[in-house]
Amino acid sequence: MSKTGNIVVFEGPGMPLQLQSRELRAIQPDEVLVKNVYTTICGSDLHTYSGVRKEACPTVLGHEIAGRVEEIGSGHSGMDDAGNTLQVGDIVTWSVFASDPESLYSLQGMPQKGAQLFKYGHAQITETEAFHGGLAEYCILKKGTAILKVPETMPLPVVATINCAIATVAGALRLAGDLNGKTVLITGMGLLGITCAAMCREAGAVKVIAADVDDQRLETAKAFGANECVNLRTANTIRASDVNVSFDMSGAPDAIEYGLNALTTGGTAVWVGSVFNTRAIQVNPEKMIRGLLTIKGLHNYNYEDFRYAVDFMSAHWEDYPFGKVVAEEFALPQAQQAFEYALAHKPLRVGVRID
Amino acid sequence: MSKTGNIVVFEGPGMPLQLQSRELRAIQPDEVLVKNVYTTICGSDLHTYSGVRKEACPTVLGHEIAGRVEEIGSGHSGMDDAGNTLQVGDIVTWSVFASDPESLYSLQGMPQKGAQLFKYGHAQITETEAFHGGLAEYCILKKGTAILKVPETMPLPVVATINCAIATVAGALRLAGDLNGKTVLITGMGLLGITCAAMCREAGAVKVIAADVDDQRLETAKAFGANECVNLRTANTIRASDVNVSFDMSGAPDAIEYGLNALTTGGTAVWVGSVFNTRAIQVNPEKMIRGLLTIKGLHNYNYEDFRYAVDFMSAHWEDYPFGKVVAEEFALPQAQQAFEYALAHKPLRVGVRID
Repeated sequence: MSKTGNIVVFEGPGMPLQLQSRELRAIQPDEVLVKNVYTTICGSDLHTYSGVRKEACPTVLGHEIAGRVEEIGSGHSGMDDAGNTLQVGDIVTWSVFASDPESLYSLQGMPQKGAQLFKYGHAQITETEAFHGGLAEYCILKKGTAILKVPETMPLPVVATINCAIATVAGALRLAGDLNGKTVLITGMGLLGITCAAMCREAGAVKVIAADVDDQRLETAKAFGANECVNLRTANTIRASDVNVSFDMSGAPDAIEYGLNALTTGGTAVWVGSVFNTRAIQVNPEKMIRGLLTIKGLHNYNYEDFRYAVDFMSAHWEDYPFGKVVAEEFALPQAQQAFEYALAHKPLRVGVRID
Repeated sequence: MSKTGNIVVFEGPGMPLQLQSRELRAIQPDEVLVKNVYTTICGSDLHTYSGVRKEACPTVLGHEIAGRVEEIGSGHSGMDDAGNTLQVGDIVTWSVFASDPESLYSLQGMPQKGAQLFKYGHAQITETEAFHGGLAEYCILKKGTAILKVPETMPLPVVATINCAIATVAGALRLAGDLNGKTVLITGMGLLGITCAAMCREAGAVKVIAADVDDQRLETAKAFGANECVNLRTANTIRASDVNVSFDMSGAPDAIEYGLNALTTGGTAVWVGSVFNTRAIQVNPEKMIRGLLTIKGLHNYNYEDFRYAVDFMSAHWEDYPFGKVVAEEFALPQAQQAFEYALAHKPLRVGVRID
């Protein structure tokens, strides 16, 4: 007997989202079927929805997803990526990508650039493949997807953010190196920025400077561990600074340059926010050299980062107001309203409940 | 009985170099006195001589120096930085800088930025301090200077280059990480560039691409291990490339951008040549992020790099034509002719014999 499920179809910018029922194909032996239970709308979903970013359409948006294991393929190891037994009914998060773990980039610690790359929430719907996004009742997890169990006590809106925002920040901290006793500057106080503040504090940073153009977001940053705030609209001079590590989560060239210029000798700038086209960053090579500076770009994350993110959230989601990140919640059939609300109010996250 | 020695005094760009005799002060217990035996003229000496770079004058130029130990202070450990016994008569090279090894940057692996930094060949002559450059008969090695013995069999012109060009390249390789099986691109085929080619080959790089605007220099690069050459004047398109690491030794913005754009996913650009003011480098942040790229600036080197440089040259100076790097040789009283020759002919190095 065939099973069906609803998906929300995105056909292109300006086109209404459509709720459609589709037949769910049988899973392959190395696949896992999950029932999606909660999806948060990420900034890049909004970029695609509003046409700033292009995806092959029709597609199912949403890649920050919490799910419940529905069926485990007969050839699957039955373990999650941390070595825990995986059972039907478990609440899980999974990597936004699947890729071949034996391919060159995967072996070099960059599975997010590995061969046969597949990204949830970014794939075109085909006749047989439609359940690969968060705005749907089910998701089929392909071979090469890292799956991680999360505690049942963690609220679903918190779980949903782990596999994109939180794991990416974990990757940024890996690139930054040891933060114990360090001073960090974070530009861009969206979900990535505030998570970065909290993660840096937990990693031992003594001073966490939050920078943004919005005072409201800077206020929020304080609750997430920032102990100094800079409004970039009014900070007309760059302070002689002793910043060891600057993280850019905004993608705004002015903010990126501010973060680079704030570094002390031996400092590192980690760039994360630039997932869209902007003007070039002006980098003074003599300063890079005499200051022994480093710039590292990060896109997505690797499996180690993903486990770090789950461990971090399991330990600390109650220490900071992660539970308040979702400002408004909608049901799956109201997905379009969820997007419109997100664009109109620009909260940290809007959530979609999938019953 | 007081001892005297000659120094070559530089009073500023356009002023004739002057050979002067000075009284040699007694060394402190933690100092070492060396008789300079050979100095090579580095690009930054030429920058200072011609006014592109400013130093406090009067000064004694020259910091690529080979010396013979003349006297060891009573409070000195009597060991070199590799743990070898140091004796009067030993041929030695020493770090271009002295700094406090217990200061913050030194403890962070950046002694070249440590407190109480002193740089040989870059200091102003005072009433008591005149023997601190290569264009002089003696050099007093201050506390916090790393001294390394070199084999007696190594020609002096080869020894002289170790503590600047060769050690800096060793630092660049440290920043590049494991090169085994990698493809590297080196822009700027001066002494740093050709040394980098040889060092990358010995570190296991399979493809070493040399880039310069001068065909003659590219020819030389081949003898130092480059197995592919690019003339940047005629390379009007940037190749879709699989370069894992690019090193810039030129400081030329066009070359730096060429090296950055040639990187494959996960690649690293190491910038070394930009020791002078230039236009800003145009860096595409989206490419940095999606390509998981890294840029690292390097100025001078640390003690580990310096030991690597001595070990590398001890093992390999005969495997590549390092013995031919000095194109022309002058005696100390002809130092001015040495500079004029270097500026007119732009060889890899001009040497100054100090008898």
